[in-house]
Amino acid sequence: MLGKLVFLVVWAVLSRVQAEEGMWLLNNFPSQKVKAQYGFLPTEAWLESVRLSSVRLAFGCSASFVSPHGLIMTNHHCATQCLEALSTPQKNYIQSGYLARIEGDEIRCPNFEANQLVEITDVTARIRKATAGLSDQKANEARKAEFAKLEKECATSEQVRCDVVTLYGGGRYELYRYRRFQDLRLVFAPEVAIAFFGGDPDNFMFPRYNLDVTFLRAYDQGKPASTPHYFPWSSTGVREGDLTFVSGHPGGTDRQLTIAQLELDRDFVRPYIVMVLSELRGNLTQFQQRGPEQKRISQAYLLQVENSLKANRGEHAALLSKSFFEQLRAREKDFQRRVLANPKLAKEMGSVWRDMEKVVEKERALFLRNLYLNSANGYRSTLFLQARHLLRLAEELAKPNEKRLEEYTDARLPQLRQLILSPAPIHKELEIEKMTFSFTKMVEALGPDDPDVRMILGRKSPREVATALIQGTRLDDVNVRKRLLEAGKPALDSLNDPMIAFASKLDALSRRVRKEYEEQVESPQKSLAEKLAKARFAVYGTSIYPDATFTLRLSYGSVKGWVENGKPIPPFTTLGGVFERHTGSEPFALPDSWLKARNQLNLETHFNFVTTNDIVGGNSGSPVINRKREIVGLIFDGNIHSLGGNFGFDSAVNRAVAVDSTAVIEALEKIYDARRLLEEIRQSSGS
Amino acid sequence: MLGKLVFLVVWAVLSRVQAEEGMWLLNNFPSQKVKAQYGFLPTEAWLESVRLSSVRLAFGCSASFVSPHGLIMTNHHCATQCLEALSTPQKNYIQSGYLARIEGDEIRCPNFEANQLVEITDVTARIRKATAGLSDQKANEARKAEFAKLEKECATSEQVRCDVVTLYGGGRYELYRYRRFQDLRLVFAPEVAIAFFGGDPDNFMFPRYNLDVTFLRAYDQGKPASTPHYFPWSSTGVREGDLTFVSGHPGGTDRQLTIAQLELDRDFVRPYIVMVLSELRGNLTQFQQRGPEQKRISQAYLLQVENSLKANRGEHAALLSKSFFEQLRAREKDFQRRVLANPKLAKEMGSVWRDMEKVVEKERALFLRNLYLNSANGYRSTLFLQARHLLRLAEELAKPNEKRLEEYTDARLPQLRQLILSPAPIHKELEIEKMTFSFTKMVEALGPDDPDVRMILGRKSPREVATALIQGTRLDDVNVRKRLLEAGKPALDSLNDPMIAFASKLDALSRRVRKEYEEQVESPQKSLAEKLAKARFAVYGTSIYPDATFTLRLSYGSVKGWVENGKPIPPFTTLGGVFERHTGSEPFALPDSWLKARNQLNLETHFNFVTTNDIVGGNSGSPVINRKREIVGLIFDGNIHSLGGNFGFDSAVNRAVAVDSTAVIEALEKIYDARRLLEEIRQSSGS
Repeated sequence: MLGKLVFLVVWAVLSRVQAEEGMWLLNNFPSQKVKAQYGFLPTEAWLESVRLSSVRLAFGCSASFVSPHGLIMTNHHCATQCLEALSTPQKNYIQSGYLARIEGDEIRCPNFEANQLVEITDVTARIRKATAGLSDQKANEARKAEFAKLEKECATSEQVRCDVVTLYGGGRYELYRYRRFQDLRLVFAPEVAIAFFGGDPDNFMFPRYNLDVTFLRAYDQGKPASTPHYFPWSSTGVREGDLTFVSGHPGGTDRQLTIAQLELDRDFVRPYIVMVLSELRGNLTQFQQRGPEQKRISQAYLLQVENSLKANRGEHAALLSKSFFEQLRAREKDFQRRVLANPKLAKEMGSVWRDMEKVVEKERALFLRNLYLNSANGYRSTLFLQARHLLRLAEELAKPNEKRLEEYTDARLPQLRQLILSPAPIHKELEIEKMTFSFTKMVEALGPDDPDVRMILGRKSPREVATALIQGTRLDDVNVRKRLLEAGKPALDSLNDPMIAFASKLDALSRRVRKEYEEQVESPQKSLAEKLAKARFAVYGTSIYPDATFTLRLSYGSVKGWVENGKPIPPFTTLGGVFERHTGSEPFALPDSWLKARNQLNLETHFNFVTTNDIVGGNSGSPVINRKREIVGLIFDGNIHSLGGNFGFDSAVNRAVAVDSTAVIEALEKIYDARRLLEEIRQSSGS
Repeated sequence: MLGKLVFLVVWAVLSRVQAEEGMWLLNNFPSQKVKAQYGFLPTEAWLESVRLSSVRLAFGCSASFVSPHGLIMTNHHCATQCLEALSTPQKNYIQSGYLARIEGDEIRCPNFEANQLVEITDVTARIRKATAGLSDQKANEARKAEFAKLEKECATSEQVRCDVVTLYGGGRYELYRYRRFQDLRLVFAPEVAIAFFGGDPDNFMFPRYNLDVTFLRAYDQGKPASTPHYFPWSSTGVREGDLTFVSGHPGGTDRQLTIAQLELDRDFVRPYIVMVLSELRGNLTQFQQRGPEQKRISQAYLLQVENSLKANRGEHAALLSKSFFEQLRAREKDFQRRVLANPKLAKEMGSVWRDMEKVVEKERALFLRNLYLNSANGYRSTLFLQARHLLRLAEELAKPNEKRLEEYTDARLPQLRQLILSPAPIHKELEIEKMTFSFTKMVEALGPDDPDVRMILGRKSPREVATALIQGTRLDDVNVRKRLLEAGKPALDSLNDPMIAFASKLDALSRRVRKEYEEQVESPQKSLAEKLAKARFAVYGTSIYPDATFTLRLSYGSVKGWVENGKPIPPFTTLGGVFERHTGSEPFALPDSWLKARNQLNLETHFNFVTTNDIVGGNSGSPVINRKREIVGLIFDGNIHSLGGNFGFDSAVNRAVAVDSTAVIEALEKIYDARRLLEEIRQSSGS
């Protein structure tokens, strides 16, 4: 019903900071504002408990502890890669779902890591000191070195993860100390047909009918982890107008970019990304026609590509809306006006917006070269990335911690090691297609006569090069990778593996392109962003929230529909609604389990609902909690208007979309007969 | 070498009308300007001879007569569909090329039509009279009815084609009378590997090395047609700086659109088209991996999709260039200023630009619905289009000529009949993919809950519906179509063909959407465009050229390179250059015939060259002639800057790209041993 809105949506007018706007830091939360608006004051203890009950999935999702025994709730779409990795041609868990009836059935998800934020330390002064008086490029190097030092000092064991976090674009630096879980096991997942009912057409839409939930369990030394901090389950759920909090990890927003940066995004970067993802989508869709096995091995990847494409299109549509962009312009003008009103500040800021325009021109010029010759995004091959990691790790470990490429510093090693040693199968048939596609796009972007392209492909076609590399490499065998990881450089040199040789041939070039990009784009951009951040504090005060950075944030809002083309959209859907929407054809086909259980279900049960909480991608899997910290829902999406949220929040129409906690219980009980899981949740439930 | 320019190109500043700008009407040609600049005065007789020697290929290309015996020269890429239609799994003429050694070897291209423009009549007064005083919608209907009447009066036999042509957006109407040839036979085509050497990466690029030529022959009553007007072949070719004319059929330009229309294009239509074509490209590329036969049957279609995609990207990039768009804005401002300086005109024009803004909003709202529910572009299935034509033809023929949908008026019937009776094979395996793709995009654009979408797909998936329709239909058999065409409505009703039934089910909806679009968008747009055209004549005089409309135009210019990033690009490449560029891998692999003949060739022979002639898509296949009307080249492309030519001409960098006439001779003689063809060309050659 709302399908067409992707293109026809009119982005409404933004006021500067709206009622529910904000992805707030838990150590800078506007509790008094919440109290004024909703009559409830979140205390320090309340906030601490929320922090310790919240979970981050390291690859890019949010989650929460929902029992004292390490039980984690997240989205099905956050666990798709685990389901795919555990599947075989005979047993496809994405399709069939999974239920561990006893603890022994809980199976480990390869390459999953969960983080629980246990401590935050302000390290701004130390970073400022390390970079004081240095040129942009030297400051960038010194900053990275100081990050590596701080993180290493903090990460006292593999069970501790430490990240220095850049907030307010460099206005503040904080050291985040996490408890790290690398043994996560699958407890329950429904069938994808109901987890992602409506598929791509319904994605980012509402009304909606998705059971987008999966339960995992954190293990510690082979046993379910003890997690005394967790969110109890609400026995009642929510009603329209109820106050809701969402605690999660929004991945990234661009609300503090300058207009020059946003124009580059709108007119250059975003159209390019949409084009490449569209072509890749067409390619993968047709690849799936090769047969059921090819469909199985490419399903998770296609879902990811389609989701990313739809999000990018929505964000691009927001930027292309004249009225929306004018509001972004007005926001910058207001900022500039306030800066100029303060002579000292005006002098310090000097030419910062004009300087950023120049950096943007550099970024435009270097974007494609950096994408294809440096960034991993240019390659889209797991086997190539494995080769690069093995190779670079061997080289970088020989250097002092502070001098390494940032992804190989000591504090990063546990996650990297887990990635290299992941037993998840790597499918060569799909790898060949991904790498052929990547090379083809590289030739198109840089031109067939580009000397770097010639160095990479020689006189061969993209498909020839990709096929030879993928078919020839043995890096799909985790035992080979394990041996290489342990033996280091000599083993790599003697292996005679074509993918290792290729990564090696490419490495000097990649490092050169990376350095050029860092010097000409990243370093000056960071310096300018720091300046802008300081000015922002000066004119707006420090009671503001920083752009999202995949770190823990708390947003507040309420259960509330919106008005679309003059028509009110109610905030709830029901279980009954999904049966009406069932057609029997993908993606509107309910699984058999649901069709069979229909008569047992209370069809009035709320299924999905929307709230005014300010969220973006990365918030997937975030718990929706009430003032008692009880689970009342599970965020899995935003409506189409939420995609403009990357640049600004419009409380009139921007909505978060969640699974209702009561629907989860109804389904676990009457469809999946998940007694053990239900009992655990109920034992932990609130009043 | 210029590959990357697709994205990084900076569109230079346009002055209002530049030296070589203009796709001139042959009856309004600026001969005096040419004389002033080049010392050569094209006379009326010269222009008439050029007109009668020029050829239009009705599906969208240009061509020319090059002998008195109906020999036609055009591009290989204009004949790809013929080559594909004549190929079989055993004999792939796209790959192998074709040479008719004797007249009897010349084989007929299915569904090809050539037109020779024999007479032009100004009919503006008659159209004005028919529409005087009517509302937009009534005027639109009356205009179409008058077109149908004029065309029918003029088309006295199937060998005569008559089109009323709208020029200057409605500032002038002319009746074009063509001699029609429907029996075109294949004489010579090289291998696609050299015709399209460099493939998509080199498309719209220069330096370039393509033998993009094909010779056809027009037949009349089973014999080579007599064509006393033709272009003789130059024995010397061209040199840098030489005056060149290009006589051809530019397909369409948007140089007279308002800024509101251009913004819709830039921010909405173009991004959407690029996205859809990208996904289709990915889909087809992967489809070709099914096997060599699938590659063969989809090659022409993929080439067309890729070419269209690259052109759309280039045009979008031009619109996204700030400096370029500012020039377009300045052009409109200049026009508005001049209009306002004339009180009478200012009053007549009233709110025309504001009115156009309102129509643009309607267009935005109706664009996707019209695309998927009315326009054939929404379907991308040859079999669906066959069904629709058979069905509508039966219905429309029952109405008076003036009341029919315009594509079924009497003057259109010969071309339509040829289309329906074309013996070109229709491949069901590819048809299923094209139709599945179309339905999938329709669901995405209009939403799965749209009542029209539900009516079309029922509860089935796009692939299910497409597969059932395509597998079930018998319309791939030309004999079935022939019988239906002859028997009309009763036969259609009794056939029980699923595709006919589907087209029938859809028809009321399609017609309703079409009517809505005509009323709300097309009719007011035409009325406003007429107003703008009159004002343009009033302030700029009538010595201006109209936007391209796939009618005959003559442009003048000279052989000239350009400067790219400070580096001069010379105007010629040589045959030797292609051997240097040969890698052995597609699309940079020369065919064996070339590798074998290398030692015989004069490698200094000019291969491709660029000129300053103002051309766009549709000009493919246009002859490049000198002042003696001799063939010196064959247009097959423009450089990347030429894509901005859709909106405005920049003589500094916009270049037409042609095959050099001397390279054609060298290849025919030393590589293809095409003696009979060479002799015919040489007998017809100039001094």
